Amino acid sequence: MAERILVINPNSSLSCTDGIAAAIAPFAAPGLPRLDVTRLPDSPGAIVTWRDWYGVAEPLCRMVESEAADAYVIACVSDPGLEAVRTVTDRPVFGPLRCAVAAAMMRGERFGIIAFTDKSKPRQRRALQSMGVDTRLAGTIPLNLDMEVLTDPVAPRARLAEAARELVAMGAEAVILGCAGMAGHRAFAEQACGVPVIEPCQAAVTQAILSVVAARGAGMRLAAE
Amino acid sequence: MAERILVINPNSSLSCTDGIAAAIAPFAAPGLPRLDVTRLPDSPGAIVTWRDWYGVAEPLCRMVESEAADAYVIACVSDPGLEAVRTVTDRPVFGPLRCAVAAAMMRGERFGIIAFTDKSKPRQRRALQSMGVDTRLAGTIPLNLDMEVLTDPVAPRARLAEAARELVAMGAEAVILGCAGMAGHRAFAEQACGVPVIEPCQAAVTQAILSVVAARGAGMRLAAE
Amino acid sequence: MAERILVINPNSSLSCTDGIAAAIAPFAAPGLPRLDVTRLPDSPGAIVTWRDWYGVAEPLCRMVESEAADAYVIACVSDPGLEAVRTVTDRPVFGPLRCAVAAAMMRGERFGIIAFTDKSKPRQRRALQSMGVDTRLAGTIPLNLDMEVLTDPVAPRARLAEAARELVAMGAEAVILGCAGMAGHRAFAEQACGVPVIEPCQAAVTQAILSVVAARGAGMRLAAE
Amino acid sequence: MAERILVINPNSSLSCTDGIAAAIAPFAAPGLPRLDVTRLPDSPGAIVTWRDWYGVAEPLCRMVESEAADAYVIACVSDPGLEAVRTVTDRPVFGPLRCAVAAAMMRGERFGIIAFTDKSKPRQRRALQSMGVDTRLAGTIPLNLDMEVLTDPVAPRARLAEAARELVAMGAEAVILGCAGMAGHRAFAEQACGVPVIEPCQAAVTQAILSVVAARGAGMRLAAE
Amino acid sequence: MAERILVINPNSSLSCTDGIAAAIAPFAAPGLPRLDVTRLPDSPGAIVTWRDWYGVAEPLCRMVESEAADAYVIACVSDPGLEAVRTVTDRPVFGPLRCAVAAAMMRGERFGIIAFTDKSKPRQRRALQSMGVDTRLAGTIPLNLDMEVLTDPVAPRARLAEAARELVAMGAEAVILGCAGMAGHRAFAEQACGVPVIEPCQAAVTQAILSVVAARGAGMRLAAE
Amino acid sequence: MAERILVINPNSSLSCTDGIAAAIAPFAAPGLPRLDVTRLPDSPGAIVTWRDWYGVAEPLCRMVESEAADAYVIACVSDPGLEAVRTVTDRPVFGPLRCAVAAAMMRGERFGIIAFTDKSKPRQRRALQSMGVDTRLAGTIPLNLDMEVLTDPVAPRARLAEAARELVAMGAEAVILGCAGMAGHRAFAEQACGVPVIEPCQAAVTQAILSVVAARGAGMRLAAE
Repeated sequence: MAERILVINPNSSLSCTDGIAAAIAPFAAPGLPRLDVTRLPDSPGAIVTWRDWYGVAEPLCRMVESEAADAYVIACVSDPGLEAVRTVTDRPVFGPLRCAVAAAMMRGERFGIIAFTDKSKPRQRRALQSMGVDTRLAGTIPLNLDMEVLTDPVAPRARLAEAARELVAMGAEAVILGCAGMAGHRAFAEQACGVPVIEPCQAAVTQAILSVVAARGAGMRLAAE
Repeated sequence: MAERILVINPNSSLSCTDGIAAAIAPFAAPGLPRLDVTRLPDSPGAIVTWRDWYGVAEPLCRMVESEAADAYVIACVSDPGLEAVRTVTDRPVFGPLRCAVAAAMMRGERFGIIAFTDKSKPRQRRALQSMGVDTRLAGTIPLNLDMEVLTDPVAPRARLAEAARELVAMGAEAVILGCAGMAGHRAFAEQACGVPVIEPCQAAVTQAILSVVAARGAGMRLAAE
Repeated sequence: MAERILVINPNSSLSCTDGIAAAIAPFAAPGLPRLDVTRLPDSPGAIVTWRDWYGVAEPLCRMVESEAADAYVIACVSDPGLEAVRTVTDRPVFGPLRCAVAAAMMRGERFGIIAFTDKSKPRQRRALQSMGVDTRLAGTIPLNLDMEVLTDPVAPRARLAEAARELVAMGAEAVILGCAGMAGHRAFAEQACGVPVIEPCQAAVTQAILSVVAARGAGMRLAAE
Repeated sequence: MAERILVINPNSSLSCTDGIAAAIAPFAAPGLPRLDVTRLPDSPGAIVTWRDWYGVAEPLCRMVESEAADAYVIACVSDPGLEAVRTVTDRPVFGPLRCAVAAAMMRGERFGIIAFTDKSKPRQRRALQSMGVDTRLAGTIPLNLDMEVLTDPVAPRARLAEAARELVAMGAEAVILGCAGMAGHRAFAEQACGVPVIEPCQAAVTQAILSVVAARGAGMRLAAE
Repeated sequence: MAERILVINPNSSLSCTDGIAAAIAPFAAPGLPRLDVTRLPDSPGAIVTWRDWYGVAEPLCRMVESEAADAYVIACVSDPGLEAVRTVTDRPVFGPLRCAVAAAMMRGERFGIIAFTDKSKPRQRRALQSMGVDTRLAGTIPLNLDMEVLTDPVAPRARLAEAARELVAMGAEAVILGCAGMAGHRAFAEQACGVPVIEPCQAAVTQAILSVVAARGAGMRLAAE
Repeated sequence: MAERILVINPNSSLSCTDGIAAAIAPFAAPGLPRLDVTRLPDSPGAIVTWRDWYGVAEPLCRMVESEAADAYVIACVSDPGLEAVRTVTDRPVFGPLRCAVAAAMMRGERFGIIAFTDKSKPRQRRALQSMGVDTRLAGTIPLNLDMEVLTDPVAPRARLAEAARELVAMGAEAVILGCAGMAGHRAFAEQACGVPVIEPCQAAVTQAILSVVAARGAGMRLAAE
């Protein structure tokens, strides 16, 4: 059977799911694992509160138990349920926030986060603490926009550009889009602020590709030079 | 012109270069950037000493100045000359050690490194310090083998397996192969120790792919679900 | 209405709930808040896995929403659902692990934890990281006993004493009982190892008393000297 | 003989001693240890300088040697002589600053301190360093008022409120009153700034109660549910 | 043969070399090691870029191999090539930036750096990381002046004074002159800002003197009191 | 009047004072500040306990107030009273432990301490915490010998050599003699363990020389090359 990476949006927003799919589509290629995007039925419209965050862990576990894949991405930039999901499968499970931080650190020593809302900050702080890199956070700036506004191709851009620039002024050498719903604005934000802007689902999918392709084993042959 | 990622082995070992090429070959795919592997002419047979490490910075700068690419990987697991090379191009430049640490941290909270020699340790310590994650290093175990022995498909395996297992006993939840010359032993080492084993050039190439593909801009379309 | 502190055991073990009640009973006194102990209906027999840990957050929120109190203690030494519960009440909510760490740090600079099982460690690591004191952990030693064995007045004592002594040898200047089910063994463990042994529910209840009594306002009168 | 906790004000200010006694009085209750407050004869009017701080260590040792108690609190928010006093008794000795920091960390991840004077800061920094939590200090704001002004029920309040609010703006999720002389203003300050305000002598006395009551041994009986 | 300390300016600026020599001259004394100052032929006019920084490592190694001394100082406040030079001699090699940080920390807990240019910052960050004291940096303020302006006895002083004062306002309790070319302005800067100002070549030379004199062996006699 | 550095042994041991004088004698030279060694009358025979440590602060302040000097060294490797003494003079005051740590860090990234007794460790921990480098301590090994045995030219050497070697095995790249009474054994210990051994009074005196000579002002002239 073909390799596949299952990308699960733990919220029920269609526009958010579409944005995730669009963001990762360019990483699908012949010979690489198939990228399947789905969303959690009956989940909140966005992961806004700690209660949302805790609440999606169990449904995520159940979906992963019932859907075989070679690697999983929990496509929300607060990495909900990550540790729980890891206990129900022996395949790798990736959190986009952690993967985005890892990618940002490949481009600079300090990074900033454009957050979905004020309430996102403590959850993101936990992920940074689990990686031991909380002192590398230059700052977090929340947009406090509705998911449907955020995923609009135009509406949130002025605010996004301003936030990205402000983070650079605070010392960020790379900027992380703090919600999967911002995926369609990556290139715009990068142009606006002049430092690399990381889209977390893209960062997570490439980590997932690394894990699946590397796992094919030692039977590789020299192909280049 | 087609996108390409240039992977530069800063040592002159042919078997090491071949191992790098073999390790990254599976990440080449239609629609993704081409992966070109080269080596630095007139460079040492391996980057063993601090003097080697400092010495390849300038030749690396010159090669990058003369070879256009969309992203560069300096394919030695001590990230030599990284900061200097970054000043001669506006394209992203990746160090495999940092990328491997980032990938390892996506799989566990503490990681270990199987080092080329005793002398590798202080250089790797610098890279960990620059990322701020030196406290997450469970341990480093050097193999102290010649490059040509290391790249042999059989010779170094007993020692490698032992080192990987010892690192796990020291608390490593992921293991990093500390030299590009060990690339062909990844799957073997993983089987030996039971935790994810990261091959740094693979980790760096996927970060490079992320940077190049993401940079294509916002003109993506929904492709999945 | 009289002040009260609600202590909620998030598991369904009766012997564990009894042990918690016995441990905190001596802190009940006329003029101080009443201490009420309850347990979460339909909860697991013990919080053993990450899935258990995530799963009790929502039932805890619901219980706190429906049971008025002046302060709440979530009586499990992995502080499950703490952040979520804090969003559903404006009264203070305490996690026994964090409170035990705070109390241990009042008695020494490094502390050790006797854990319920091997699986407790990563959850406790998160709480230490959230307090920023993970480097002060001298070590964690799991007992790996069933809850009903653990709450037996005799059965677990030899193993508990050995673990406490080993933690002291590892540099612990105070020892934390890592499960509410160990509450009845505090004095025994302290005698066995010679350094202060902290029972987390006691530590949490005194923090809760502090918060409730201090909140009575400024209308205090000089009563002593 | 009845259990008692001896609270020693290491300065000679009567109004400061009265304030301490008033602050801790509500924690006295039948069945709990008696709370006795005293002050060090011939001590400075306030612990303002490093010289004061070093100087009270020996008199504190002598008082503790001559006054039996079940636990001691050194009632100055710079924890003077703490390590020395601990060597002259086998009973627990508590420092209010450390206890206040511990209590503050139970209510938020970052805290601020309203300091007595500019000169308090380096001494408080030492205590935070000894706990390993200096990075959690959001800020310190000194009032620079005389002890007799500080203990006035009205005079210092405008300044106190302003300081508390400013600390919240700097990121403090809890505020510590940095001098025992501010004890009477706790409720006022909390109302002014909207986050929990910790009075250190209260925090220390509850830690002392925890240590004395817990030490009664294992002979507890189930009392609740 | 007489003991000597060789101080190597890795840039080719004559005025900078003269400034270094003047700064360290007062530390030469009968009975102590001779202080010889030289500069690296064919080196850049100043170490401004990462490429300069990497590039001087090999020439420094060659000079140290060919010039016997009892200790070496690499007289540039970015400590270029330090680890490489240490591998070509068994005598101590000192970097002025690290020595200045060490000296600054003997005078206060936080320090600031007046940097040569904006580009100096990341190199200095590496040295602080290697010492583990990057959190003690209150701030860095670059002057962005040419080397020949910087070594002028008058031209850069207004800017220098302003930078020193601003660093004190940022919390610096000692200030480091971030380029050997500023050596002649130490006393001026100290007077301007009121906290100790450290000239790194002086700091390095005293560390070198310590290492050489201490190494004379145990044959000392009581000489004082 | 001639510049002088006053080195105050805060204990009353004659042999210890002699050892200090002998250790620093080689740093006295024409043109440099005179080095005067004295001891605190009526002080303990050694600073062994926290009570000793706190107790000498006030007598040290009084001596410094009555003895003019250009810089002061408190010649005990636990830096007693340092902060207090700094408030009674505007001249620099140095602690040998901090200066030794600074010197050790100029020779390697991790260091070990040979301590006077078991009881020295918590005091040394405070000094390391105040510098923020406690994670760089590879280990501490106490000798637990009387001061008069320690200062004997032969008696303590076997134990000292063993301790130094053990610290190197623990990862120390430099070793600090943790008591001024060990001063006469520096060269021996260095030969025994093969890494630099730092004598703290020598380290402090060179920092003091740096501060006094640098303070002479800007009127220097080029003297070398």
